[in-house]
Amino acid sequence: MDATAYVRDIALAARRAASQLALSTAAVRDGALRACAAAIRAQAGALQQANRQDLARSGELGLSEAMIDRLRLTPARIEAMAAALEQIAAQSDPVGQTISASNRPNGMRVEKRRVPIGVIGIIFESRPNVTADAAALCLKSGNACILRGGKEALHSNLAIASVLRQGLASAGLDQAAVTMIDNVDREIVTAMCRAEGLIDLLVPRGGEALIRAVTQAATIPVIKHYAGNCHVYVHAEADLEMARRIVLNAKCQRPGVCNAMETLLVDQAVAETFLPQVLSALDQAGVELRCCPRCRPALAAAGLDQLAAKIKDAAEQDWRTEYLDLVLAVRVVDSLDQAVEHINAYGSAHTDAIVTRSIAAAERFVKAVDSSSVMVNVSTRFSDGGEYGLGAEVGISTDKLHARGPMGAEDLTTYKWIVTGEGQLRG
Amino acid sequence: MDATAYVRDIALAARRAASQLALSTAAVRDGALRACAAAIRAQAGALQQANRQDLARSGELGLSEAMIDRLRLTPARIEAMAAALEQIAAQSDPVGQTISASNRPNGMRVEKRRVPIGVIGIIFESRPNVTADAAALCLKSGNACILRGGKEALHSNLAIASVLRQGLASAGLDQAAVTMIDNVDREIVTAMCRAEGLIDLLVPRGGEALIRAVTQAATIPVIKHYAGNCHVYVHAEADLEMARRIVLNAKCQRPGVCNAMETLLVDQAVAETFLPQVLSALDQAGVELRCCPRCRPALAAAGLDQLAAKIKDAAEQDWRTEYLDLVLAVRVVDSLDQAVEHINAYGSAHTDAIVTRSIAAAERFVKAVDSSSVMVNVSTRFSDGGEYGLGAEVGISTDKLHARGPMGAEDLTTYKWIVTGEGQLRG
Repeated sequence: MDATAYVRDIALAARRAASQLALSTAAVRDGALRACAAAIRAQAGALQQANRQDLARSGELGLSEAMIDRLRLTPARIEAMAAALEQIAAQSDPVGQTISASNRPNGMRVEKRRVPIGVIGIIFESRPNVTADAAALCLKSGNACILRGGKEALHSNLAIASVLRQGLASAGLDQAAVTMIDNVDREIVTAMCRAEGLIDLLVPRGGEALIRAVTQAATIPVIKHYAGNCHVYVHAEADLEMARRIVLNAKCQRPGVCNAMETLLVDQAVAETFLPQVLSALDQAGVELRCCPRCRPALAAAGLDQLAAKIKDAAEQDWRTEYLDLVLAVRVVDSLDQAVEHINAYGSAHTDAIVTRSIAAAERFVKAVDSSSVMVNVSTRFSDGGEYGLGAEVGISTDKLHARGPMGAEDLTTYKWIVTGEGQLRG
Repeated sequence: MDATAYVRDIALAARRAASQLALSTAAVRDGALRACAAAIRAQAGALQQANRQDLARSGELGLSEAMIDRLRLTPARIEAMAAALEQIAAQSDPVGQTISASNRPNGMRVEKRRVPIGVIGIIFESRPNVTADAAALCLKSGNACILRGGKEALHSNLAIASVLRQGLASAGLDQAAVTMIDNVDREIVTAMCRAEGLIDLLVPRGGEALIRAVTQAATIPVIKHYAGNCHVYVHAEADLEMARRIVLNAKCQRPGVCNAMETLLVDQAVAETFLPQVLSALDQAGVELRCCPRCRPALAAAGLDQLAAKIKDAAEQDWRTEYLDLVLAVRVVDSLDQAVEHINAYGSAHTDAIVTRSIAAAERFVKAVDSSSVMVNVSTRFSDGGEYGLGAEVGISTDKLHARGPMGAEDLTTYKWIVTGEGQLRG
């Protein structure tokens, strides 16, 4: 099979659909989203049947319990997919907005107007609901999408895409606006990565290995996040009770997700007071603690000898690790600047927080920490599209170009310069 | 030499400078720009001396007259460089602007705030004034830059960068904010292309071969434009006198630049009337005409037999060619939709224009043409940063991600999400 030709044919069909979408009204696109939601509800049985085919192969593919859980389509999850489509339909239209406009001295009007990007390629693993979410956000923003899911969810993904295409057709839109690739050959991914002039943007979602492979192979733009190595820094002027609550929430409320805290940084000015209380509470919550050499003396001074004996020594590698588990690295830092240095050196530019009562400290931290989300006196767990008011999210970007942090439908748009005049000539 | 290590050392120094710039005020950065302007004026003699070293090698390097002209630093050009720095200093500050902000139901404030990107790599050829312009726009927007110019301008570029670094130092800024690479080894470019986590963005400027090489090698974001294959479409409802003037301006006013017209599309409804007048005028202006088969009959019908005999037949390749010269491809199209199809198939997404009196036709063209600049009733020659009111420009992007069309200082920024609360926890 010629993977390049295979991808080209799919992409050319998607481009024709994208041309149609670029001329479509929001009413038509939103109507299509609602038709897709209705089709998903009407065909829930067929979706579950396809899903059972994937589940039947999960043992053979050696999937873990967690992966099987992500793969499973329950009636509740199918309803959630349909509801998400309706919510996206109800959002305001990002397409056609005037970003800026000015009248030039020669009478020309120069406008920057928001438009769809064109064709978005989404490469993902496991969870079949990504199919519906990603397709819906692309459709909302006037883009066609080419989806390539993992082989473990192939039947489920194809069934969802088929239902969505029925929804598109019933709204009078080209079905090629949503294409699920049914070929699980790795060469297809490579061909997508090199589809210059055919695919405008790739969004890989999944494990770090997948994302690195896509980034290395790509000659077209990629937006991604590798990891969420998130920090909370407790400043010298922190409200320590607030800090304790934020630390526990950021670590324990859902440790397996990318915006959970992985390293706690405590200012030396409050280390002796704060470390005994926070480390005790984390220990009681079942968190394994990997600490710098300055933590043990603080525990011993507070008479917490048992805990001092229990905590482990942090190695350099711990500062770089996204545990996604009830494990926490802890370091005492000399100053706000050292905290910033640590975060910028070891972090992943995802989400980092400061707890402080000082406006000046907060502002310095916000400016100096080079991350997509910087939190002041709130838990890192809030960094997602829903909490930011974006509705659904295509993903989270730790890149700096085009979109940063949680990405909504607006982040799947670009702009055009539109210059209007009455025959102006360049002199 | 280890090119990777060489680039890493330079980039790490640039990152430290970028960290300082991220905390700097606009007053300090603008002061540095004015100090740079003063230093350029004060050391004009040294700049010309360095330039003479490059000019002396131009024969040996086999440079064309046009290249030698671009390379030459005259007193007027040195003064223009200094004046551009002062103009950039006078622009409004793009850094720190609030792009959007909202208060969430739980009381958190979520703000998108504009911030510098970090370290920008600029890879360019020939013209030494790019050194000053690019460095100034990076400094304005709070970014450090790593510049890699062509070997033909090495002495001039190093001299300009040295003067700029004196300006930075006199304003108390880290000189590593502007670094000109003095090594002309090709491996340096490859290492820059792969400097993940070190260089945040690459902007290649120059011939298509250079830009393709950078894009192919890059694992970090690249913003670029390959070519300017620009079109003017004369619609059925065009003011034909306006159309004639726009066509002549777009082709002849400065044919060697990227926003000059390369293909004229004429609607069949006006072909018989318009082609004789516009092709005669273009011929008189010395333009070589490469025409589709429908042009010659229109000329013959108007009695222009000599011109009908003189025009050449357009080949498929002509629709793809950026002549950068007094040569024009001409095609009669059946409709607006066929014009759009031609432009999207053969164009370079740079700048494309329609001439029409119809609002509906203009709006359809604007939506359907997938180009960074779409002009209505004005010459394509207006698509540049100065004409759009951006001041200087870093380059023109025909990409769709991050920045599209002429790029000013604002396009060298990204944003952060800043979330502020009073101890909010995720439930």
